[in-house]
Amino acid sequence: MTSDATINEHVHLLVYALMTDLTPKAERTRQAILTTALSLFATKGYEATTMRDIAAEAAVSLGLAYRYFDSKEALILALYQQMAEDTDEAVQRQDAGTVADRFSAIMTERLQQAAPYRDAFAALFGAILTPRSGAELFGSGANAVRERAENAFIALVRSASDAPAAPHVENVGRLLYSAHFAVILFWIRDSSGGQRSTQALLGFIHDMIPWLLRGLILPPIGRELARFIRIIDGVLGV
Amino acid sequence: MTSDATINEHVHLLVYALMTDLTPKAERTRQAILTTALSLFATKGYEATTMRDIAAEAAVSLGLAYRYFDSKEALILALYQQMAEDTDEAVQRQDAGTVADRFSAIMTERLQQAAPYRDAFAALFGAILTPRSGAELFGSGANAVRERAENAFIALVRSASDAPAAPHVENVGRLLYSAHFAVILFWIRDSSGGQRSTQALLGFIHDMIPWLLRGLILPPIGRELARFIRIIDGVLGV
Repeated sequence: MTSDATINEHVHLLVYALMTDLTPKAERTRQAILTTALSLFATKGYEATTMRDIAAEAAVSLGLAYRYFDSKEALILALYQQMAEDTDEAVQRQDAGTVADRFSAIMTERLQQAAPYRDAFAALFGAILTPRSGAELFGSGANAVRERAENAFIALVRSASDAPAAPHVENVGRLLYSAHFAVILFWIRDSSGGQRSTQALLGFIHDMIPWLLRGLILPPIGRELARFIRIIDGVLGV
Repeated sequence: MTSDATINEHVHLLVYALMTDLTPKAERTRQAILTTALSLFATKGYEATTMRDIAAEAAVSLGLAYRYFDSKEALILALYQQMAEDTDEAVQRQDAGTVADRFSAIMTERLQQAAPYRDAFAALFGAILTPRSGAELFGSGANAVRERAENAFIALVRSASDAPAAPHVENVGRLLYSAHFAVILFWIRDSSGGQRSTQALLGFIHDMIPWLLRGLILPPIGRELARFIRIIDGVLGV
């Protein structure tokens, strides 16, 4: 992590801390800017959209827009933050159930909520993969947000009715966190009617989770899971 | 597939068929345009790069560049075509060996060759995910090229020393084809020194392949593999 990114991250965390004190009107303005940004990313693409475009479309002054988000990257981080919070809250609201049922329920709910912004997500994921797009901040500056999202999936596993033995809880949670990104990527590319293929993929994952949980009783399976998580953790630090 | 895309595909296939008759000089020009395009995609991004930029940088007239590639999309398809051919030829050159050893060898070789163009690949994968970037042609127009690449991996499995029973050969080949894309995506994001994490991931896949092959003796494993391939096939039609 560059020290610039570290500073940026701290600034953002401070901004978020302060935002809990936003007045309802300020919070509405902030949400309007975020939603406008999302729809512009979808129609114009991430790179082509400027803060000026976003302010104009949200009918706020550029200065006001900058007071909420000092850059497009801050906007992305805020969107990511919101996704992580929503996932976390959805997990906390869940009734007890199996790991498979809870994961399916969360994913179905999250994808339904994201459906209006599917093109925006595609644009953002595209930008993340594109070098020098600026959206790369995702990879380095967003560790705190990422941890919150990962912890949501770890909590999902820990409090499930068929939770694995304690040493495996974190790894299964991190695996589900990665699976949730893989499903989103798949969903972005899925042009089947009503995203049928994504539903089929979720059904498949739902059926595989109990196999994995039962397999974890065998030491080599637990070891290989831990190995896989160690490998991907360093790179998929989204 | 739209009929426009079908027409496009046929035009491209025709162009490739004609290109086998290119003179050495014409072939060099074509390669120079491709290589130049790749480095411009890496430095400027896919969307920001025009055919005019590519022609200027390759020191050919715009008219000549268009004679080889009628659009940026044709360029991408040609790059993809070349990757598929290289993979196919690499498989044909391989000595007998296990599925795991052959897959590792192919991936290591392909990633070494791709190393100078890592940023270009990142830009292209980003563009593929971005709606309306034009690079979406990948998804619909490139079926013939894709089939060639898939068949290379199926051949890799079929002629391996530990090839699975005949009904599983195609599915294992298609799974490896998907794994090869997943590894490339991972490699694009991998900033560890010497892409250590990608090496670790390849080592992990190498160790998991024999587990899968042995597992296929159990009917439910074969059924679930077939189910998974059916689900992803419709969407990852890269």
